[in-house]
Amino acid sequence: MVISNIDSSLANTLSHRRQRLANLIDFPAILWSGGSSPRNFPANLFPFRPSSHFLYFAGLQLPNVAIRLEAGKLELFMDDPKPSSALWHGEMPNRDEIAQTIGADATKPMSELEFSVEDAATIAVQDAATWTQQSQLLNRWVLPQNPPQGIDLELAKAIVSLRLTHDEGALTELRKAAAVTVAAHKAGMAATPQAKLEAEVRAAMEGVIIAHNMTTSYNSIVTVHGEVLHNEQYHHRLQPGDLLLADVGAETETGWAGDVTRTWPVSGKFSPTQKEIYNLVLAAHDACIAKIRPGVEYGDIHLLAATVIAQGLVDLGIFQGNAEDLVEMDAHALFFPHGIGHLLGLDVHDMEDVGDLAGYEEGRQRSDRFGLSYLRLNRPLRPGMLVTIEPGFYQVPAILNDVNLRAKYENIVNWERLSQFSDVRGIRIEDDVLVTTTGSEVLTAALPNDADTVETLTNS
Amino acid sequence: MVISNIDSSLANTLSHRRQRLANLIDFPAILWSGGSSPRNFPANLFPFRPSSHFLYFAGLQLPNVAIRLEAGKLELFMDDPKPSSALWHGEMPNRDEIAQTIGADATKPMSELEFSVEDAATIAVQDAATWTQQSQLLNRWVLPQNPPQGIDLELAKAIVSLRLTHDEGALTELRKAAAVTVAAHKAGMAATPQAKLEAEVRAAMEGVIIAHNMTTSYNSIVTVHGEVLHNEQYHHRLQPGDLLLADVGAETETGWAGDVTRTWPVSGKFSPTQKEIYNLVLAAHDACIAKIRPGVEYGDIHLLAATVIAQGLVDLGIFQGNAEDLVEMDAHALFFPHGIGHLLGLDVHDMEDVGDLAGYEEGRQRSDRFGLSYLRLNRPLRPGMLVTIEPGFYQVPAILNDVNLRAKYENIVNWERLSQFSDVRGIRIEDDVLVTTTGSEVLTAALPNDADTVETLTNS
Ligand SMILES: [Mn+2]
Ligand SMILES: [Mn+2]
Repeated sequence: MVISNIDSSLANTLSHRRQRLANLIDFPAILWSGGSSPRNFPANLFPFRPSSHFLYFAGLQLPNVAIRLEAGKLELFMDDPKPSSALWHGEMPNRDEIAQTIGADATKPMSELEFSVEDAATIAVQDAATWTQQSQLLNRWVLPQNPPQGIDLELAKAIVSLRLTHDEGALTELRKAAAVTVAAHKAGMAATPQAKLEAEVRAAMEGVIIAHNMTTSYNSIVTVHGEVLHNEQYHHRLQPGDLLLADVGAETETGWAGDVTRTWPVSGKFSPTQKEIYNLVLAAHDACIAKIRPGVEYGDIHLLAATVIAQGLVDLGIFQGNAEDLVEMDAHALFFPHGIGHLLGLDVHDMEDVGDLAGYEEGRQRSDRFGLSYLRLNRPLRPGMLVTIEPGFYQVPAILNDVNLRAKYENIVNWERLSQFSDVRGIRIEDDVLVTTTGSEVLTAALPNDADTVETLTNS
Repeated sequence: MVISNIDSSLANTLSHRRQRLANLIDFPAILWSGGSSPRNFPANLFPFRPSSHFLYFAGLQLPNVAIRLEAGKLELFMDDPKPSSALWHGEMPNRDEIAQTIGADATKPMSELEFSVEDAATIAVQDAATWTQQSQLLNRWVLPQNPPQGIDLELAKAIVSLRLTHDEGALTELRKAAAVTVAAHKAGMAATPQAKLEAEVRAAMEGVIIAHNMTTSYNSIVTVHGEVLHNEQYHHRLQPGDLLLADVGAETETGWAGDVTRTWPVSGKFSPTQKEIYNLVLAAHDACIAKIRPGVEYGDIHLLAATVIAQGLVDLGIFQGNAEDLVEMDAHALFFPHGIGHLLGLDVHDMEDVGDLAGYEEGRQRSDRFGLSYLRLNRPLRPGMLVTIEPGFYQVPAILNDVNLRAKYENIVNWERLSQFSDVRGIRIEDDVLVTTTGSEVLTAALPNDADTVETLTNS
């Protein structure tokens, strides 16, 4: 945590955010930052990552502190570092320095927090030591796996309504995350010709992120088995006919995330079948982005992607039928089984810690339809929202070999024709798209996605 | 977790380990692997790392399973992956395949574990979801922050006695970790001339580790402020007169750790004062390694380092007095305030999760002396132990500006002479040393540590 690198406008940004919160709730909120989680023994810790709700209002990655927000005022509860900690951790900014940086109205030691909890709402953090403390001080269970209740739910809804759209302070950070994410993907493409393992491409990509003093915003996917949607293995050898799918994002020093996927040919050249499907996924991607503007339902963007993919598969002779009908019966989900994207902000699936409160407009619930159940966002778009657009095509054995699904879609899929596309295991193209007042802005547009340029970047 | 990459001798190694455990205890032991810890929301997880005690007997990084060891037999409690998980995570090895790989004598679903807990000892894992389950099933508190009691303490002592010395299976992995750690440090030196930030050197080093499909065994220290002992900041710019201290280690796919520190000049050339101190730290390092053999007290190795450093500082005119007397009064700790090293194995501070049970011979306790309190290992050395040797010299403001310490050592330190060494903020040289039957073997010997070669590697 480095104060010197923090933009001087931080205090203004934070003040504005808590004023907006004060317009929505009439009770105090206490947000804990959380502590580090142990890895294999208590002193060997995973890198500290504070609660995103805390970060939104406090701006800095401060471990083991709390802020109390009421009527637009911020009280910082924090203990000054012990003198002995200077030996191990160096001189850290003290409470008053932090308070000045974030524009706190008052500061107190953590021991006084217990006298300020009355009628306060909170949101559970992820680490056990801190949610235990939250539960004890507030005298009720505050658990990350429980949906918020009562005033905690009211607080969560208020914060969601703020975090759904991004202010300038957030956008400055999100553009930084996007830029480094783009650079990581370019490095991954460039490293592929010399790489023998997936792990080597991952190293080139994460190396860029580490070199910018950022972290990955989620565990990277860098795989020649793109059909495994959450693949976190990196041991496979790269073969000339493989496609490499990389879903890698950078997170800035103050916690804002990027999330991009590209798919490129290991050999530097798509096969004809790979190029057909690649261009189909890209067509879906481009159609979705072209449709983004305020007022459009994100669910309709998802259905648009499904329709473009279904139509493309009809054109390729893989599907038989009419695209709208195919989508109506969820046939697209055989090859595109996930949602078209999600909110992006301080979390890669922004605010997923409070369930679907952020992703789903009040009164809406997840569908249990095969083609819709994984849709993470179902709201009308508004200026300032940042969403991902990430259509894909996958040949997932667990789906395509499922007896029930094969029976259901027996007359729709031309399995013989499909077998000609066996060198297309998984393709996804994902960008980060800001909803503007007139349409959209792709924050990750500096990363080409047309097949020819992707080939060139891989060969360079 | 990839079965195909696992050496076929794994089952034999594991069988031998549990036979040896059976010779030490006459009650069953249940070891849980643990689960992933959440980062900023429940589905965004830190990389999974099982309990090291589990890994020692089960060999594979399996989440959310348990093994029951009794009389040399291993029962594997594990649920087969749900069919739906194949969509997201791909086809994983099933319970029977895992059981064959690790040589399990029986397999059961996790739901049957509750019927096998009678009289069983365990060791707490680090993640809250699992230690909650441990506590519930065993009907007593099993918490990672509590020292083990009763049969749990007996089990911990038995496992410690096994893990204190490494078998061939362990050494094979520890040599792999050492080799990749060495390669990472060479890459860091080579990247320094082009680097502007600490973070860029870190990226080059961790890139090597990631490219080998390994992880870091602890959060890397890569800093021009080596005087901050646990520095985890990487934002400083590299200046020509700086020394860069890098404490970075690789951990293999089955969890075995490397731990190496080198210090090199950013410019590729030590200043005369830097070289004086560097060579002094190296002399302490070499003297300690030369002394390692079975039967030698590790505490005496620490005191040898302290004495070499004290004598060197006398020779340089920084200390006045006799080296033995200076060590007796802890004067060396002004500049060398930590211990000479620690056990290394599946944990970078091996078995530190059970406190000083591993580090301290039964009946011994930590000293509260300024010069000894951070000594992590205090036992006679035995063949098969792997220890680090990591002397250092630091000018820590929190120590050197401490009023009490300055008063205590007023007549010992020539502060004016010391001020001539202001370009030496922190130097450490650390290697991983195996105790052999006749002496020692430095597993990280492939990484040069003499000043000239370090300069050459930095300039290459
Ligand atoms: Mn995404
Ligand atoms: Mn060490």
